[in-house]
Amino acid sequence: MNDFGLDIWSNKNFIIENDEVKLNYKSMPSILELVQEIRSNDVRGPMLLRFPHLIKKQISSLYSYFDKAIKINNYRGSFNAVFPLKVNQFPHAIEAITEQGGRFNYGLEAGSKAELILAMSKTPLGAYITVNGFKDKEMITLGFIAAQSGHNITLTIEGLGELETIIEVAQECNLKVPDIGIRVRLHSAGSGIWAKSGGMDAKFGLTSTEIIEAIKLLNEADLLKHLSMVHFHLGSQMSDIAPLKKALREAGNIYAELRKMGADSLDNINIGGGLAVEYDQHTKSKARNYSIDEFTSSVVFSLGQVMDAKNVKHPNIFTESGRFIVASHAVLVTPVLELFTHDYQKKLLNFKPVNPPLLDELIELNNLLSNQNCIEYLHDALDHMESLLTLFDLGYIDLQDRSNAEILVHNIIKRALYLKSADPTDELEQLQVKLQERYLINASIFQSLPDYWGLNQHFPVMPLHYLNTTPLRAASLWDITCDSDGEIGFDPDKPLYLHDIDLDEEDYFLGFFNVGAYQETLGMNHNLFTHPSEYTIEIDEDGHKITNEVESKNILEILESLGYSKDDILDKLKGDLIKSDFISKQEKNDTLAKLETFVNQNGYLRTTN
Amino acid sequence: MNDFGLDIWSNKNFIIENDEVKLNYKSMPSILELVQEIRSNDVRGPMLLRFPHLIKKQISSLYSYFDKAIKINNYRGSFNAVFPLKVNQFPHAIEAITEQGGRFNYGLEAGSKAELILAMSKTPLGAYITVNGFKDKEMITLGFIAAQSGHNITLTIEGLGELETIIEVAQECNLKVPDIGIRVRLHSAGSGIWAKSGGMDAKFGLTSTEIIEAIKLLNEADLLKHLSMVHFHLGSQMSDIAPLKKALREAGNIYAELRKMGADSLDNINIGGGLAVEYDQHTKSKARNYSIDEFTSSVVFSLGQVMDAKNVKHPNIFTESGRFIVASHAVLVTPVLELFTHDYQKKLLNFKPVNPPLLDELIELNNLLSNQNCIEYLHDALDHMESLLTLFDLGYIDLQDRSNAEILVHNIIKRALYLKSADPTDELEQLQVKLQERYLINASIFQSLPDYWGLNQHFPVMPLHYLNTTPLRAASLWDITCDSDGEIGFDPDKPLYLHDIDLDEEDYFLGFFNVGAYQETLGMNHNLFTHPSEYTIEIDEDGHKITNEVESKNILEILESLGYSKDDILDKLKGDLIKSDFISKQEKNDTLAKLETFVNQNGYLRTTN
Repeated sequence: MNDFGLDIWSNKNFIIENDEVKLNYKSMPSILELVQEIRSNDVRGPMLLRFPHLIKKQISSLYSYFDKAIKINNYRGSFNAVFPLKVNQFPHAIEAITEQGGRFNYGLEAGSKAELILAMSKTPLGAYITVNGFKDKEMITLGFIAAQSGHNITLTIEGLGELETIIEVAQECNLKVPDIGIRVRLHSAGSGIWAKSGGMDAKFGLTSTEIIEAIKLLNEADLLKHLSMVHFHLGSQMSDIAPLKKALREAGNIYAELRKMGADSLDNINIGGGLAVEYDQHTKSKARNYSIDEFTSSVVFSLGQVMDAKNVKHPNIFTESGRFIVASHAVLVTPVLELFTHDYQKKLLNFKPVNPPLLDELIELNNLLSNQNCIEYLHDALDHMESLLTLFDLGYIDLQDRSNAEILVHNIIKRALYLKSADPTDELEQLQVKLQERYLINASIFQSLPDYWGLNQHFPVMPLHYLNTTPLRAASLWDITCDSDGEIGFDPDKPLYLHDIDLDEEDYFLGFFNVGAYQETLGMNHNLFTHPSEYTIEIDEDGHKITNEVESKNILEILESLGYSKDDILDKLKGDLIKSDFISKQEKNDTLAKLETFVNQNGYLRTTN
Repeated sequence: MNDFGLDIWSNKNFIIENDEVKLNYKSMPSILELVQEIRSNDVRGPMLLRFPHLIKKQISSLYSYFDKAIKINNYRGSFNAVFPLKVNQFPHAIEAITEQGGRFNYGLEAGSKAELILAMSKTPLGAYITVNGFKDKEMITLGFIAAQSGHNITLTIEGLGELETIIEVAQECNLKVPDIGIRVRLHSAGSGIWAKSGGMDAKFGLTSTEIIEAIKLLNEADLLKHLSMVHFHLGSQMSDIAPLKKALREAGNIYAELRKMGADSLDNINIGGGLAVEYDQHTKSKARNYSIDEFTSSVVFSLGQVMDAKNVKHPNIFTESGRFIVASHAVLVTPVLELFTHDYQKKLLNFKPVNPPLLDELIELNNLLSNQNCIEYLHDALDHMESLLTLFDLGYIDLQDRSNAEILVHNIIKRALYLKSADPTDELEQLQVKLQERYLINASIFQSLPDYWGLNQHFPVMPLHYLNTTPLRAASLWDITCDSDGEIGFDPDKPLYLHDIDLDEEDYFLGFFNVGAYQETLGMNHNLFTHPSEYTIEIDEDGHKITNEVESKNILEILESLGYSKDDILDKLKGDLIKSDFISKQEKNDTLAKLETFVNQNGYLRTTN
């Protein structure tokens, strides 16, 4: 059975049972069942399903692995975590995160003013807020307001200018001073020349010299007692644990040195995010070379070791993992609209009494093709095809001749591939790719999988049903944007096989997994396709509940969000139709009603059958 | 003088005069003057300036070059054009396009349902609408409604399924039947194996066999009289004209063959878009190997030649160029917030009575550095630095030692670079890149230059002032997102040099040019930074007018657009502050007022000086 790499990427969140993909949790609904329930309310287009229990699972897992490592290593600091809002700022995601993280005092991280306002309104009092990114005086003042309002907030400074502004604000007002963190620039963050030059081209962080300056400034302003955190971040989706171990030693030593220099309130090391998620469907553990167990014990062990060597108090550990927490919680479901096989059926061959000589040769190649000669004949056929296409361009043969040639050559390629399928050459594999069946999906890659466009990030994808049937068609996926980049292709060594479905008779749905991180906030409105319809699925022992519906924007709303007037548009469209001739009043009214319906639906295609 | 490649990319739209970049049009305002006028109303953050006269220039240019080519070649078809909405759907862009294109009967192209509704409401009756992309029955019905409402509309079919639906709708209603176009799949669109296999893996278009089928279906349904257009599109930003010439011959022959097969109403060939824009700042004509003159005469001549050879009526020519029409009309202006030089000043050296031996060696290397030994000493310094960093990580040296080492090595690198600046090695060039000054810009690359993130597309960038002063600092640009991808780096062979400005004393603004195509609609809300503030600038002989202001969203609006309640957020923030202790009532009220101001401003940073 083709399980589409479920054992590699799914972290046991999903299983295949009775032909379908099911949630591996409590009442175990099948995804298809959920999709059909939603579609029974006439919802069409792509949909995003959120599973809050998977957020809970990830948060619990993070805390429990760290707790375990802390116990085993006799570590004397605590573990704390915040969720970086930039990974997913949408209400029903944040709601699930704060709700599921409640018992851990799980907090939020903000990287911009708007995110800070969001963090201040959504972080339960007592949980941590950390603030990274570049800050102006207003953002820093907001930090003071948050502290005054009771939040446990740390402003991470990214440069000395920010520290100067903090000192300025502290002198100007009586609001409570927030905790201060220092982002340190690590040489160990990179490799090669970058490491050699002390990480000097990294975007963020203070050099050693600047850190010493910072301590001096804090001391002079009598604010050293607010310095509470050393912060670093190695970048998203860390594949290798070695740089992290180095970074921990380096940051640990900076922390220890600062304590020795009199930073008595310095209590915390924030190791940022970067915990990787497995997206691969074919090879086990390609995305990272470490387990969560190794990750947590490396962090705890390394920091303890540095502190013990320097005889310094163990710091509390903070993480800002985002992808790890939310990637798995969302599944994008897209209907397949069409299988775009091109029509090369032999019955459409339509020879003339006299055909061009090269076409006659193709007919003969096709007739005489065998296991022995197929590679040679294939080369001849491709060569003839090229000549015939040139003859067409120059006006020597007509469209019917060209059609006949295409059908014959296509047939020769297919048969050669079949005959050599046990032992394909590179050339044959390339041809196989060209022959991939194109599955048209009712979605926009730019809107729903922007990291595929920007970073070539593949997400695990599989059909939601027919899983007892072996899929035989090597597929590529097209979206419905008018853009040739809107296509997900698959290499011959990592193919996607899908089923051969007659879409006039049956529906076919694909699920894209692990799409809960970044994809929503980075979504682009290319061709004016907006976000999919969204639903939260709460699962318990007895069944499930579908809540928090956010339907994809309808067409008039999309245009309004660009700045157009809904009323003007509708008035114009109706007016033009009313003024028109040659149809009955009845048909005019029916058509007006249709028009009104169309503009109040979302912009995706509606399966016509 | 450094003109930042103005003669390469600006198409004479801008000139440098009196230290500043000016519009090369009528009253010739300087961009800085416009920026200051806008900022005098307390607007902060990035801004997008639209110049409708540049849209007019491009539309006129397209039509006049085609008209000229038609005259010279005695071509007997007309020239027509539509603007593809996907390139820019925003109201003030579309308004400028339809207004400036009015006298040419310039129309709109739609690639989705939402775009079709927009086209139906904004295309002047009489101008053309073309509809590409995948269509369901509703979208096709909308095409019938548009035709019935008086629009000159052509539905381009992308597959036989769409044609079957057109036939179905035509049979079900009495609405006027729209014109029908066929997207043809060209073998000449690609190269190598792709061409050989007849373009069989292209996303769009019908094969020869399918075209023959389509004619049969149209004939049977008595709709052949509505087949009016053959359509192809080679892809965006065509760099080479050779494939276009081949494609024209191929598509021309298909057109001619179809007319011979009885398609008597077939009158038009639509060559799609793809006319390239020059983005390069360093090398003349990198983006395309052809002029607009060669482009237009190639199209007209090739089509005329095919038709004359086959004795077929010359088709009318349609184009769907978008980038060429709007790229130049918009300029993104970003303030520079900070120059992030790291502090490696020699005055911060702070040696101990006894230093680690490697540090003593660095001191000596620094003292004895000369033109003769500098490469060797540089290597020694880098090697020592690596060792010292390792010693720090292992706890053998302290933060002050590390700081001293960083300052010394930095100084050695800088002096070696200076000494060898006439003849740098690859290694030195790489080090130079590491030493680029980092200019922090008040903008989000993800929001305002998404094609840089997704496609590594560089846009021309230059300061708007100080242009009589030679810029000396090799720069890289950082945006204010919390993302290490939010950085525009420059290769040593294509550097960006900027000025050394004291931002406490003066402002410094950068302009990104040719950003009018795609960037707005693809903009991503990473870190919740939304679109820049937008303005239309109308220029005449006497001066200019700034209109159509669309301010960047304020923070509460951003959060509302995600689905949060503005009131809930503000109530929560105010409530938390009101409940807090230890500050006076007066300070509480002042702070509440500040809070209210902050959340009603956009999320970008406000230059604090």
